[in-house]
Parts: sequence; C-alpha cells; structure tokens
Amino acid sequence: MSEQWWQAPCQPIDHVARQKAEQRQARLTKPSGALGRLEQLAVDLAALQGRECPHLEQPWIAVFAGDHGVVEEGVSAYPQAVTRQMLLNFVAGGAAISVLAHQLQARLEVIDLGTAGNHAPLGGVHSYALGPGTANFTRGPAMTVEQCAAALAAGRASAERAHQARAGVYIGGEMGIGNTTAAAALGCALLDLPALALTGPGTGLNAAAVEHKQRVIDSALLLHQAACGEPLEALRRLGGFEIVAMTGAFLACAQHGLPVLVDGFIATVSALCAVQLNPGVRPWLLFGHRSAEPGHTYVLHALKAEPLLDLGLRLGEGSGAALAVPLLRLACSLHGGMATFDEAHVSDRGA
Amino acid sequence: MSEQWWQAPCQPIDHVARQKAEQRQARLTKPSGALGRLEQLAVDLAALQGRECPHLEQPWIAVFAGDHGVVEEGVSAYPQAVTRQMLLNFVAGGAAISVLAHQLQARLEVIDLGTAGNHAPLGGVHSYALGPGTANFTRGPAMTVEQCAAALAAGRASAERAHQARAGVYIGGEMGIGNTTAAAALGCALLDLPALALTGPGTGLNAAAVEHKQRVIDSALLLHQAACGEPLEALRRLGGFEIVAMTGAFLACAQHGLPVLVDGFIATVSALCAVQLNPGVRPWLLFGHRSAEPGHTYVLHALKAEPLLDLGLRLGEGSGAALAVPLLRLACSLHGGMATFDEAHVSDRGA
Repeated sequence: MSEQWWQAPCQPIDHVARQKAEQRQARLTKPSGALGRLEQLAVDLAALQGRECPHLEQPWIAVFAGDHGVVEEGVSAYPQAVTRQMLLNFVAGGAAISVLAHQLQARLEVIDLGTAGNHAPLGGVHSYALGPGTANFTRGPAMTVEQCAAALAAGRASAERAHQARAGVYIGGEMGIGNTTAAAALGCALLDLPALALTGPGTGLNAAAVEHKQRVIDSALLLHQAACGEPLEALRRLGGFEIVAMTGAFLACAQHGLPVLVDGFIATVSALCAVQLNPGVRPWLLFGHRSAEPGHTYVLHALKAEPLLDLGLRLGEGSGAALAVPLLRLACSLHGGMATFDEAHVSDRGA
Repeated sequence: MSEQWWQAPCQPIDHVARQKAEQRQARLTKPSGALGRLEQLAVDLAALQGRECPHLEQPWIAVFAGDHGVVEEGVSAYPQAVTRQMLLNFVAGGAAISVLAHQLQARLEVIDLGTAGNHAPLGGVHSYALGPGTANFTRGPAMTVEQCAAALAAGRASAERAHQARAGVYIGGEMGIGNTTAAAALGCALLDLPALALTGPGTGLNAAAVEHKQRVIDSALLLHQAACGEPLEALRRLGGFEIVAMTGAFLACAQHGLPVLVDGFIATVSALCAVQLNPGVRPWLLFGHRSAEPGHTYVLHALKAEPLLDLGLRLGEGSGAALAVPLLRLACSLHGGMATFDEAHVSDRGA
C-alpha cells in the first residue's frame, strides 16, 4: 500500500520557544508553580506556536454530523431524526455550541457527512452526502473504503480552512444519534478492551439499555475482531462518518501546526485513532474536559491526557472544549501580561 | 452583648425564579443534564438574581492585604516585605489578579488593612492602617477587639461599594505573607481539627518546614483553645486582618443579595467563618476552584461545596475565582441563549 496523506510528518514542536517560556514563567511575580496547570498550558502553547509569549487567535469550531446504522439495534434514547434537526439548530444559533461559538467569538462551521432523511441541502452546511448514515456494523463494515477515505478528506479540508483562516486553535465537535456506540466499539478495538470498559449511558440510557448497548458492541467486536489489527480498518468497520472526519481533521491540524483542543468521549476516540495512525499528532492535542461518559477516562488514560475541566458534561458538539477556551486565553494573558520580579521590584523567595 | 450588624438577616433566595429556570433547562435542545454542572449553576444564579434567565454584570474583585505577626516563627518561604511590594504590583497591573481583572473587564480594588514597613499611603489603595500586621498568635490574640471590628467593617464597606456599583458577583482575594498559617489555625479552631489536617506548603515550603508550621499552629491552638468556642473570638485570636475583612465582605454580600464567588483555601476559611456567624450567608456562596493547598478540601467539605475548577492553583489574590468567571458567564449565555425543543423543531427523547 502506498503512503497515504495522513502518514506524512506532523509539524515539529519548538523546543527553544518552550525553554524561553519556562524561563519567563519562573520570573513572574508569583510563587513558582502557583498558577498550577495554567503555567504548563502557557508553556505548551508557546512550544506549539513557536513564540515565548503565545496568544490565542480566533478559535475554529467544526461540528461534524453523521448518522449510524447501528441505531436500528436500539442503542439510543433519541430518534435518528434528531441528527438532521440539530444541523438546522447549529446553523440557526440555538444549539449549545452555537451559543458558545458566538460568546467566544469563534468561527463555527457545520459539516453534514451523511445523515438520514430528506437530503435537500441545508443552507450554511457543508454537505458531503456519503450516504444516509453508516451501515449497521453488527452485520458488516460501517462504511466502504471510499466512504472512509472521503470522510477523512472532509476532515482534512476543514482543518485546512481553519489553518488558512489563521485560527489559533481547532475544535472538532460531533453530532450523530448513536455515536457513543460507534465510538465505544472503535475505542475498544483500538485499545483491545471489552465493551464493558467503554459502554456508558450516552444521552441518557437506563441501566438495562446500557447492558443491551454493551451486548451490541460486543457482538460487533466479535464480528470484526480479525480485521481490526490496523487502526484504519477498525475506523472503517466500527467508526461513523463524523468520527472518521474528526480523525482526518486532527491529523491535518498536526501536519499544519494547528493546535487541537479535544472535546469529550467521541472526539477523544477520534484523537486516539489519529495518534495511532500518526504518533506525531499527539503533541498537538490539548484536552478540554473530562466527560461524564465513563469510558472517556480509559481513552484519556491511553493518551496520557489530563483535561482542563471536569464539569459532568456529556453533550458533544465540541461544547466541552469550547468551554475551556477562556482558560487557554487567560493562561496566555497571564504568561504575557504579568510583571517579572525585577520589573515589579518584588522580592523572590529566599531574598 | 447587643446584636451585631453581621447577625442581621441575609437576603432570601427566589424559589419561583429557581423553579422557572429549572423548567427552562428541561426544554433546551440538549439531553437533560448534558450540560452537567453548568445547568445547576445557571439555576442557582437564577435563584440568587431573582430572574428566570440570569446574566452576569461586571464582577467586582477586592484584594485585601494584611501582615501576620506569626511570620516571626518562620512559617513562610517569602520575606514579609513581599506583602507590601505586591500591593504596588496589584495597582500597577503586573500581578496575576490585575491581568485577570483586566481580561475579564472586572473592577479591581485593593485594600491595605495593615502591612509591615513604610506606611506612606499607596496611590490607588484603600488604606486602613490597623497596625503593622497582626500580633504573633502563638503568644496572644492576633488582634484587639477594635482591630477585628474595624477589619470586619472594612470588608462590609467593600461589599457595599460593589453592591452600589451593581456588580454581578463579588470575589474576595487576599495577599499576606504567612496567611495560610493563620487560615489553617482559624480553620482548625472553627472545625475542631488538629493542625495536621489543614497545614500545607502554602507558597512552597518543603516537608520539614511544613512540619514546623504544623507545630506552630498546634501551639497556637493549645493557647487559644478555651476561648475559641465562639467563631468571632476564634477569628480575632487566630485570623489576620485580610481574613477578617473577607469574612465581613461575605456577610455583607449575603445581606445585600450579591452572589460571592469564593477563591481558594484562605477565602474559604473566611467563608466558613461567615457562615458560622450567620448561616444565611451559605446560599450566596459559589465556589471557583479547589486549591492545591491540601487543607482546602476539608474546609470545602464542611461547607458542602464543590468548586468549578481544579487546576492545581495555590496563588490566592482571588485568582482561582476569577478564572471561573467565564464559566459563570457561559452558563448564563447557554441558559438564556439556547433554543427550546419547540422553538428549534427538534424531537425530544421518546418522541
């Protein structure tokens, strides 16, 4: 197999900028370490942006939507029609991520990879129409090789739009009824875990329905087990269009040197897949929040990731990452705006 | 003893507004509970502000400074001169809280209750000059009855300025070399705990120095034990000017109906004292962050408080509370700005 675009090298990290930023942190008028995680965050952003004092230009939020054939197994509390209804809500400004994007002065784009129902194009939505959703992966692969490649490329195109617009950080969000089932199945395949580890209530299943969902995932894992040694093949067989697109977007962000602020459970599974496809992606990933979906902790652990927020969110759409944007901005402001001990004539410890 | 001002009733909470806000939350286009802690935060703010859709006007940040006689026991990593040096840094804009206040478009006021060294008034600082710091509480009470009353009143005056300026939330910050020692001693007296529970590294003591600090606190607790049954007397004997002033500010905020966003370990001890003096204060307290100072968890637990952020901060100045302001704002924006299922023509679960 010839080399694919996602195997091309990612941008390197600027270690000189990191060191300068660390030295600056040590001179700011506060006890060393007193700003906790925000100090490391500023230093990380300095290394990613290649400047001693990072600052955060406009965030770019892409919400990817897709439907899932596996919903016919009864794995979601909501009807499938909601995926497409929410696309309109994203564009009209009524969804959580729309409100957050407006408040954060972020650019929001909405991408319909393939959803069920009426396929008249929706104004303000990038439409790919890869199908009326994926196939039911308890019976066969979720998508064809062509669909998978097209979804990866759709994600890459979004990352490139963000890069060209000089976005400061990229957030990938998702919408797709049934997608915690796909994400759990894919995560289990990538981490070689049983369904039990990553199956949770999603949008609000009760205990019996979670058990059913777990059985559905286990049966899919059994069906596809032999073919899932390669992350790309696991992605194609168990993923969803929006999950694949986020994977492609994260790969392309790292290749273009655009930091990614990863959202919750589903986005983190996409991030894991991107890192398995190209380990150079990992340094470009920052993590916004820990989801209430219990499986998120396993996936974060596999990525050695410690998110900034832990607020019991389980919405998706990129909302948890968006909520962390002010922390990134304030970390940059503190790093660049605070006085040093010398400038302020303040005694350092032991002085 | 006649009734004191801080015993006067606090403002009641608006249960009708709370109920309307809860009903609104249930209609927003997201799975119920999917916004986690932000849903309850919006509902709490609705109840405190008395309107179905709360919004956050300008935050008010008051930083109270005071010096501590107990530093002569060698309990801090920094020289006492830093307290006064930092007052200038607050006003000049170089301190962490100055940068945060600017970024958040918050009003910042700096209040010098009584610091060591040159007492020429500092421009831009409210100066009370209650003394060159408290007395060493390992030998006697930290302050006189008059000093304690004046510090409480100084806090009340700050809360009243914030109320008159129609601030949306009040943050009390502190600066005072040695004040984790005073806060730990006071917290132990209020909660009937040994020094071990609440003694931590503060600005950065090593393990041996933390042990010494613990012995200093234990000796103070032994000296004042018999007199510390009353929270006000514990506050006078073991507190610091800035700790007392924050207590007064929080009491007055609750009496005026101004929500308080509580900062870290020291501010939370002041909040605990305020609640013990007047339990009507408690509903007016929101909690910004969990400090890295290990004793904070005990004090939060006593107040049944679950802070919004946990970022390993241990700076004080009100910085951890300030960092949580964007979450309050975004919680309000989501609550008021999201579409309902009906408005957006999105199917609710089971539809």
